[in-house]
Amino acid sequence: MQNTEAKQPLTRILTGDRATGPLHLGHYVGSLQQRVALQYTHDQTVLVADMQGLTDNANDPKKVSSNILNVVADYLAVGIDPNYTTICLQSQLPALAELTMYYSNVVTVSRLERNPTVKSEIQSKGFGRSIPTGFFTYPISQAADITAFRATLIPVGDDQLPMLEQTNEIVRKMNSLAGKEILVECQAMLSNASRLPSTDGKNKMSKSLGNAINLGATEKEIKAAVKSMYTDPTHLRIEDPGQIEGNIVFTYLDAFHPDKALVAGLKEHYQAGGLGDGQTKKVLEECLLEMLAPIRARRTEFLADKGQLIEVLRKGSAAARERTQEVLHDVRDVFGLNLL
Amino acid sequence: MQNTEAKQPLTRILTGDRATGPLHLGHYVGSLQQRVALQYTHDQTVLVADMQGLTDNANDPKKVSSNILNVVADYLAVGIDPNYTTICLQSQLPALAELTMYYSNVVTVSRLERNPTVKSEIQSKGFGRSIPTGFFTYPISQAADITAFRATLIPVGDDQLPMLEQTNEIVRKMNSLAGKEILVECQAMLSNASRLPSTDGKNKMSKSLGNAINLGATEKEIKAAVKSMYTDPTHLRIEDPGQIEGNIVFTYLDAFHPDKALVAGLKEHYQAGGLGDGQTKKVLEECLLEMLAPIRARRTEFLADKGQLIEVLRKGSAAARERTQEVLHDVRDVFGLNLL
Repeated sequence: MQNTEAKQPLTRILTGDRATGPLHLGHYVGSLQQRVALQYTHDQTVLVADMQGLTDNANDPKKVSSNILNVVADYLAVGIDPNYTTICLQSQLPALAELTMYYSNVVTVSRLERNPTVKSEIQSKGFGRSIPTGFFTYPISQAADITAFRATLIPVGDDQLPMLEQTNEIVRKMNSLAGKEILVECQAMLSNASRLPSTDGKNKMSKSLGNAINLGATEKEIKAAVKSMYTDPTHLRIEDPGQIEGNIVFTYLDAFHPDKALVAGLKEHYQAGGLGDGQTKKVLEECLLEMLAPIRARRTEFLADKGQLIEVLRKGSAAARERTQEVLHDVRDVFGLNLL
Repeated sequence: MQNTEAKQPLTRILTGDRATGPLHLGHYVGSLQQRVALQYTHDQTVLVADMQGLTDNANDPKKVSSNILNVVADYLAVGIDPNYTTICLQSQLPALAELTMYYSNVVTVSRLERNPTVKSEIQSKGFGRSIPTGFFTYPISQAADITAFRATLIPVGDDQLPMLEQTNEIVRKMNSLAGKEILVECQAMLSNASRLPSTDGKNKMSKSLGNAINLGATEKEIKAAVKSMYTDPTHLRIEDPGQIEGNIVFTYLDAFHPDKALVAGLKEHYQAGGLGDGQTKKVLEECLLEMLAPIRARRTEFLADKGQLIEVLRKGSAAARERTQEVLHDVRDVFGLNLL
C-alpha cells in the first residue's frame, strides 16, 4: 500500500536574543533548554538581534559587537545545533530593515505610545523624553522579524504578549491591503518555567550588578555567586527553622538539581531546623559546577575557533536571507513596488 | 610640460521627488530646469522617492506605484540625461532602509517632535495623533538618503532647511562615534526662483484641486487652465487699470515667457488700462503651448516604451546601490558589525 499521507510542513518558530551580553542561567532555564528540545520537531530560527541591541546602546556599540560571537558560542555550548536550527544575524538580513520601513507606514505614533511593553521599558530604562527613536519603534522592527520568517509560534514571557498583538495587527492590516493572506499571524508559546530570580533575589539579572551566573562562568565565579546568594535573612542559627519561600538557593536547586527527592529532603530538613545555609549552598555549588563544566568547556572550545562561529552565522544568515527576501517581495507586491 | 593639476572630484548633489503624481510647472521652475543645468558640472543623483511617498499613502499605494514611471518620463522629457544624472529608485536601495535603522538609534523622539517641517506638515495633512510612524520619522530616512550618497549640496526650499540641520546633526553624531569623518555634512542650495503659485492663486498646487499644469498636460488642459487662471478680480472693465501683483497670468508670464521686453510692455499696458485678461491669457496660452509641446511629445514617446524607462531606473539603481552600500559598510563599521 502506498503512503498517501502528505508530509506536514514543520511549525515555524522564531526566537532570539539581544546580543548585549553573554547568556546566563536565566536564559538557560527560560529559553535555551526549550530551544534544544524544539529544534528536532520544529522549523526553528534563532535570531541574534544585534540591531535591536543597538536601539538603546548606540553610545556603547561594543556592548553589542563584542557579544555576538559569545552568544553564538553559548547557543552551541548548550546544544543548539545549526544542523537543526537556523542561527542568523539580524544585521545581515536587509529585508528586516526594509519591512520595518514598510510597516512603519501602517502603524501610528499613538499606537506605539500605547504599547505597554514599550511604556514599561521606557520607564525602567529611565529614558523619559530622550528615548531613542529606534527603541520607541522597536515593536515594528520586531514585527518585521517575526513576519519575515512567517513564524507562527513565538516563545515569550507574558510581558511580551503586547508585542505579538502589535505584530498581528500589522499582519491583518497588510493582508487587508493585499486582499489576500500574504503574512501569517503568530501566537505566543508561553513558557512553563517561571522566571529564574537573580542571585541577590531582588533585581533583574544584570552584568553590572553581578547577580547572574553566566553559562561561561568559571568555577571561581560559580562558587562566589553561590556563596553570596540570598537565602533566609531571619535564619540566623543553624538549629532554627528556615524559610524556603524567596530563598534563592532552593529556587536554584528546584531549577537545576537532577535529584528531586534529595531536594525535597533538604527542604524538609531546612524548614524543621538544623540545616545550615553553608550546607545547602554546598549542594547547589556542586550541582552547578557539574552542570556548567561541560557547557563551559564546549563554549571555550568554540570561542577558540571564531572562524567556525562566523561560519555558522554566515550559513544561517544566507538561508535566512533567502527566506526573508521572499516575504519582502510579497510585501512589496502589496505596494506595487516590484516593477524593476 | 606635464599637466600636474589633479582632477577635482565633482561636487555631489542629491535631489529627488516623491512619486505621488506627475510633475508640473512648479517642479519645472523650482527644480527640473536647475537639474538639467547642473548635471554637466556636478555629480548629480535624482532619487525617485517611492518609499517616502508611501509614508502618508499606505492606504492608497497605487498613487505611488502608478507614478514612478510617469516621474521618470517627466525627467527625461525635460532633458535630465541618464548619461549625466544617476536616476534611481529608493525602494531598490536596501542600504537606505538599513541606514535609517542605524540612525534611528541616535535621534530621540523629542528631537523629531521639535522638527518644524514635520510639525507643519502634520498640521497641513490633518494627521493629529494618528500620524503614521513612517511619516513621523521621515527626517531620519531623508538623512539616510542624503548621507548614503555622500551628497554635499542639496537643492531645497527654505522650508526644508530644518531637515538638513537634522541630517547634519546625525552626521556629526556618527562621526563622533566613529572617531573620524565617515559621513560628510551637506549644505542647502537655495533656489533663486520663487515658488510658482497655483493657477487659482490660493492653494498649494494639487492634482485633486486641478490647479496645476502638468508637464504632460494636453493642449485642451493647458487652454482650460489658463482660461480659469486667477487674475485681478477688481479689473472688471478692459479700460480700467489692472493689478499685476498677485495676478497669476503675469507671474506665469514672468516665469515662462522668453521675451522679457514684451512682458514688460504688457504689464505697463495692463496697469495703465486698456488691456483685457483675455489678451494676456492668449499670450500666456501660446507661450505655454509652445513650451510644453516638445516636452509632451517626448514624454508620450518615453511612456510608450516602459521597458526603456525601467532600464533607466535599473541601471541608475545598480550604480546607486554600489555607492550606498559603501556608506552602509562604513556606518556598520562604527557599530562593529562587519564581522561576517
